Amino acid sequence: MANITKKVSWSSRGDESGGGERTPLLNGSEEVRYTRQLSGDGGMFHIGRLSTVDLEEDMTSDEDAGCPKEIPHNEKLLSLKYESLDYDNSENQLFLEEERRMSFLGFKCLEISRWVICGLIGFLTGLIACCIDIAVENLAGVKYFVVKQNIEKFTEVGGLSISLILWAVLNAAFVMVGAIIVAFFEPGAAGSGIPQIKCYLNGVKIPRVVRLKTLVVKVCGVICSVAGGLAVGKEGPMIHSGAVVAAGVSQGRSTSLKKDFKIFEYFRRDTEKRDFVSAGAAAGVSAAFGAPVGGVLFSLEEGASFWNQMLTWRIFFASMISTFTLNFFLSIYNKKPGDLSSPGLINFGRFESDSVAYNLYEIPLFIVMGAAGGLLGALFNILNYWLTIFRIRYVHRPCLQVMEAMLVGAVTATVSFAMIYFSNDCQPLGPDQSEDYPLQLFCADGEYNSMATAFFNTPERSVRSLFHNPPGSYNPLTLSLFTLTYFFLACWTYGLTVSAGVFIPSLLIGAAWGRLFGILLASITPDGSIWADPGKYALIGAAAQLGGIVRMTLSLTVIMVEATGNVTYGLPIMLVLLTAKIVGDYFVEGLYDIHIKLQSVPFLHLEAPATSHWLTAREVMSAPVTCFNRIEKVGTIVDVLSNTSTNHNGFPVVVPVAASDDMGKVCGLILRSQLIVLLKHKVFVELARSRLTQRKLQLKDFRDAYPRFPPIQSIHVSQDERECMMDLTEFMNPTPYTVPQETSLPRVFKLFRALGLRHLVVVDSENRVVGLVTRKDLARYHLGKHGLEEMQLAQT
Amino acid sequence: MANITKKVSWSSRGDESGGGERTPLLNGSEEVRYTRQLSGDGGMFHIGRLSTVDLEEDMTSDEDAGCPKEIPHNEKLLSLKYESLDYDNSENQLFLEEERRMSFLGFKCLEISRWVICGLIGFLTGLIACCIDIAVENLAGVKYFVVKQNIEKFTEVGGLSISLILWAVLNAAFVMVGAIIVAFFEPGAAGSGIPQIKCYLNGVKIPRVVRLKTLVVKVCGVICSVAGGLAVGKEGPMIHSGAVVAAGVSQGRSTSLKKDFKIFEYFRRDTEKRDFVSAGAAAGVSAAFGAPVGGVLFSLEEGASFWNQMLTWRIFFASMISTFTLNFFLSIYNKKPGDLSSPGLINFGRFESDSVAYNLYEIPLFIVMGAAGGLLGALFNILNYWLTIFRIRYVHRPCLQVMEAMLVGAVTATVSFAMIYFSNDCQPLGPDQSEDYPLQLFCADGEYNSMATAFFNTPERSVRSLFHNPPGSYNPLTLSLFTLTYFFLACWTYGLTVSAGVFIPSLLIGAAWGRLFGILLASITPDGSIWADPGKYALIGAAAQLGGIVRMTLSLTVIMVEATGNVTYGLPIMLVLLTAKIVGDYFVEGLYDIHIKLQSVPFLHLEAPATSHWLTAREVMSAPVTCFNRIEKVGTIVDVLSNTSTNHNGFPVVVPVAASDDMGKVCGLILRSQLIVLLKHKVFVELARSRLTQRKLQLKDFRDAYPRFPPIQSIHVSQDERECMMDLTEFMNPTPYTVPQETSLPRVFKLFRALGLRHLVVVDSENRVVGLVTRKDLARYHLGKHGLEEMQLAQT
Repeated sequence: MANITKKVSWSSRGDESGGGERTPLLNGSEEVRYTRQLSGDGGMFHIGRLSTVDLEEDMTSDEDAGCPKEIPHNEKLLSLKYESLDYDNSENQLFLEEERRMSFLGFKCLEISRWVICGLIGFLTGLIACCIDIAVENLAGVKYFVVKQNIEKFTEVGGLSISLILWAVLNAAFVMVGAIIVAFFEPGAAGSGIPQIKCYLNGVKIPRVVRLKTLVVKVCGVICSVAGGLAVGKEGPMIHSGAVVAAGVSQGRSTSLKKDFKIFEYFRRDTEKRDFVSAGAAAGVSAAFGAPVGGVLFSLEEGASFWNQMLTWRIFFASMISTFTLNFFLSIYNKKPGDLSSPGLINFGRFESDSVAYNLYEIPLFIVMGAAGGLLGALFNILNYWLTIFRIRYVHRPCLQVMEAMLVGAVTATVSFAMIYFSNDCQPLGPDQSEDYPLQLFCADGEYNSMATAFFNTPERSVRSLFHNPPGSYNPLTLSLFTLTYFFLACWTYGLTVSAGVFIPSLLIGAAWGRLFGILLASITPDGSIWADPGKYALIGAAAQLGGIVRMTLSLTVIMVEATGNVTYGLPIMLVLLTAKIVGDYFVEGLYDIHIKLQSVPFLHLEAPATSHWLTAREVMSAPVTCFNRIEKVGTIVDVLSNTSTNHNGFPVVVPVAASDDMGKVCGLILRSQLIVLLKHKVFVELARSRLTQRKLQLKDFRDAYPRFPPIQSIHVSQDERECMMDLTEFMNPTPYTVPQETSLPRVFKLFRALGLRHLVVVDSENRVVGLVTRKDLARYHLGKHGLEEMQLAQT
Repeated sequence: MANITKKVSWSSRGDESGGGERTPLLNGSEEVRYTRQLSGDGGMFHIGRLSTVDLEEDMTSDEDAGCPKEIPHNEKLLSLKYESLDYDNSENQLFLEEERRMSFLGFKCLEISRWVICGLIGFLTGLIACCIDIAVENLAGVKYFVVKQNIEKFTEVGGLSISLILWAVLNAAFVMVGAIIVAFFEPGAAGSGIPQIKCYLNGVKIPRVVRLKTLVVKVCGVICSVAGGLAVGKEGPMIHSGAVVAAGVSQGRSTSLKKDFKIFEYFRRDTEKRDFVSAGAAAGVSAAFGAPVGGVLFSLEEGASFWNQMLTWRIFFASMISTFTLNFFLSIYNKKPGDLSSPGLINFGRFESDSVAYNLYEIPLFIVMGAAGGLLGALFNILNYWLTIFRIRYVHRPCLQVMEAMLVGAVTATVSFAMIYFSNDCQPLGPDQSEDYPLQLFCADGEYNSMATAFFNTPERSVRSLFHNPPGSYNPLTLSLFTLTYFFLACWTYGLTVSAGVFIPSLLIGAAWGRLFGILLASITPDGSIWADPGKYALIGAAAQLGGIVRMTLSLTVIMVEATGNVTYGLPIMLVLLTAKIVGDYFVEGLYDIHIKLQSVPFLHLEAPATSHWLTAREVMSAPVTCFNRIEKVGTIVDVLSNTSTNHNGFPVVVPVAASDDMGKVCGLILRSQLIVLLKHKVFVELARSRLTQRKLQLKDFRDAYPRFPPIQSIHVSQDERECMMDLTEFMNPTPYTVPQETSLPRVFKLFRALGLRHLVVVDSENRVVGLVTRKDLARYHLGKHGLEEMQLAQT
């Protein structure tokens, strides 16, 4: 098979599909003997392409998967290395037989197990959140205690530089541990994981994203990086953790641990697994922010295309259980069992709903803040984009990554220390002692350093102080300096090879400048009383900044509302997020989308680009297509699957038209994974005849192989077996969705997206295969500044 | 055409489709000359059927539409009188040309106008809610004031029967006005409107449901019935009102008022209109309960099949604006401008989140309450079902309906009076004076009659008292009697020919027995302190009862949580609603579903029945199908459209297979409404040749006719014109979705539902039309107690 690739021209298309290129066909070359038809315009050829195979689970690249050095640093490319998930059930005979055999009671049992799984997902996610919280609390507590002692010791006698060094070293040490496990053991656990989960829910199989190892590294990593004092939050990673828990629990086995509990076997396919992963992500959001409804909406916003009521209800159940579990265990940990007042990792604290929460004439001010948030968010994203490009080019070796992370940890400590040291914003220590580690430093007795509230604290606590500390707790200079430094620190930090989220730093930056805005407003208005509460502006600022960076809308509004526990702020928060999104989108995309684009993921947006009606399936599809006959020679199949230059994943099955030299009519669709299983079990016509007693292949065999189907190279097919025939009838999907060639792109897109398809067969009026539309074919088109743009496809 | 119907056998299928029956075909009968093919198994025949045409906008039945007497009282039937909505764009050449002409800026403008419309919808819905609230408040205020004066006058001197009569007469008078406008002017405005909106969002065109007249009658009707003291709420009708507002605003014209503002013309089609109606329904929920997120989820739960992020965000915007508008105007009305603390019509009041809101061991109790709610809800639904059957049989004349409503009004007053009269539950009048109309009656000075708090009040206030009055405000006997009487009153009231909702009465019943449960619990436990707050149990009971009756789940949880303003109760409310649904569903369906079924609406559920995998498109489809040629004779088209026995709405367009006697291959799909417009404008091939300068038919012509396309009878086609030809190429949808015959029902269902289809063409392997699947074909199958059941289709 190797020689075929040399004969044909290079093409960059059609990894997912059986589609080839559009160059003139190679008539009659002997290498294409395994395709059905050798001549004729538009005939079904298999055209090899000069490209490197990049099977997801390919053992050689396993260790590097997800490692930034593979990222082509050009957001105008779409990588072909990502496989898609099959959200459309392959309704082959085996499947239909199983479904038909199943009784009504059987379906009820399945439904009940789905609920049980969702409960488990919620419970475990809540538990993990609880562990992270307690671990961070204690580690950070010890760290701040030691440093505080040290600072207090040296404040009197001088030599605070020793304290600085102690702090920096402690930070760097924590960060080092966190960075090492991520960089060396599981690079997929880097960052917040939200982009990866977005991709997964969108239908792209990001390698190793829902593995147990990723979860372990993620959890340990986030504990280290938060305890290490980085400008990061532990909320984003919760979403990823929830998703991994869901993917694990729902399959009833762990491939990594080689343990199969023989339960939930029915759920071992992409469709079902995705549903549970949505629930897991929602449970993660719910545990992170105490926002079960926000979690559901997050999952829907990111993942759902087809609304399924029962699924949504289960997702909500998982979210509820998750926040309840976290709340319950935290209440026990805090020795107040039954006190269900901390539903999330971050708790904005109670915004007392005074009768006049805000006034109508404040809304324009909020909108201005939203615009400011959009601008600052865009700036953040652009800076981070450049930084990420830099990192991809120059900081791609694990040890360099670890060193960069340690550097950031030490610099964070140094900058914080300098800020605190040079600040002279002393505030009287209130009787309620809301500060956990009040630093007196050079303040008078009974006073504390206000800058230290912001810097010498976990970010969650700082956010809460900015929201709730009484007016006058911070002076404007402190806030401006804090905003400035924290902005750049957070920007530098995001994208480090540590496991950490960007939610909390964004909130913190926004809360700081929001509070500043409130203070300034109160000072320039004659009657300051109505602007009395800078905490309100801190909240709006936090929303604006977060919205400007991540550009989430509906779910973020609900998350913020749930986290504040006050519905009254719903409208302003929504307006602010909307403004931030509109303003920010004018300059640059959201942070997660930038990172998704930088990885060249073929991400399908919710709708086709508005101005794409002039494109039809004919222009969009990959053609010609590699097809198989209903009864196909094993050798042909092996050759097609082994062809490393194409790596197709779906193949239409055709029946020849009797008295005609024409192409065959489509009668089914079969997947690479199914063929692999068939080859592995040697389901050949000849063998079936000779060994009549042979066990019939069952759906179970496909499920056992899921999701890590072996590569074709690992399956040995002897020369004799190559001459055998394989009957695909029973295993192919006999009713693949098809569209005529004239179908417009938006129509194709809608069908594709609504049904979660992976392959869509394009047929002519005679029902003959003329092309295949895959995710990449659709993801290529997007709206740029100057109208519709087409992205290139790349093999890496 | 009339004689054809006599020749063929009766069939009850295929109103929506071009599908006919499966009886042996009529070969060669002259009446079928307009179909393409006269012989052959499975050929495309037009088979007339003995049925009465029932065009939605048919003038003869206009006044009666929606009138209960048309309801076939058998829930095993599906009526063919309902048309479906076209949620799948007909992407014909005209449409594509328009889309392709439109610039990127044009799409932006469209998007902006969508937002503006949603803002308007929210604003107007909020305004209507505000008007209703103020009107009810004042009318009920006057009524209770007068009655109270009267009672106080006669308490001393005796002769309270005069007070009773006064009260009863006042009630009956209000109710009479409300019932008369509904019964005589717009029967479609009866009830809460939620079943109708559910149907609309599901894709069924319920006659006259989104008309201006319906809105006016609905608003006036609900004011009268609430002021009339019926056991009803004003919340359900708000959802309907919001939907009508949306349908009106989005079209930029009022057909009733014959006023066309020439704006928003792009939105004059089912797809866009539905989106706005979802927003309107959400805005209604939002205004009713102050629950914007709940509103969004309600719309999604009831309407959405395909998740659209931008749409959801717009829906949320409309909801927010709606609750804000209501809040804002109410704050002005209450002379506290800027006080945004009453976001909805019903306000549960603030549940103070004590540190211990509920304990883990209370959850089983909540679940028991949920089960009780499910049981009571099922009882309510069964009683109401019988009552509705009775009403359909015997109370279908408008004057009878008015009299029944007046009777209920008077009985409500009498029962209430009796309960208050015989109650001896006197409570001390607190200093905070939370009662608006405290009735002293026979109580000592400084005390008030506790039964009167529940009965002598608008239901909203009663709910609030039950939630928040301090422990001891009610004695158990009062609560039991109240629950009992109100249960039967509410059950009798729902389904009266008045405009009113069932939410508040359900909440009230539940709150009463929930509070009773709490009191009993406190009395039997040794340490009563932890059960101290019966208000909590009132809340849970209210949720249980409401859930047991309406069986909404996700959205109802969120609505309840938002209305209480306390996220902590999320989990118990969810568990309670879930339990109530499971228990209730065991006995009978939800109240709305019962009423939908009683109207024989072909309602599509979210998923195909679980055990339907053995059915394929071949079994489900209607066949044979009436098809047209690309270029078809006008006479043929007119005959097909005029055939009152079939009343098909969609017709596949076929091209004949050249050298074969076979059926044609599908090349498009055209709708009745499109053909009507073509006939009206006489778009005939011959005319086009003779009058070359004639204006080309544009999309605008179709939009102008939308949605009240004239019936075929009103279009005059001369005998000469009958011989002309019509070229359908430009107007048909050239890329209808098709499926092979072997496709399983769940797969067909998924495609149908996800894309919001109205017609799905079933083809054979040669792409020839063999059948057509419509909403009715799919809605016929449902899961009964004994597995899959098939419903019959009826012409009425």
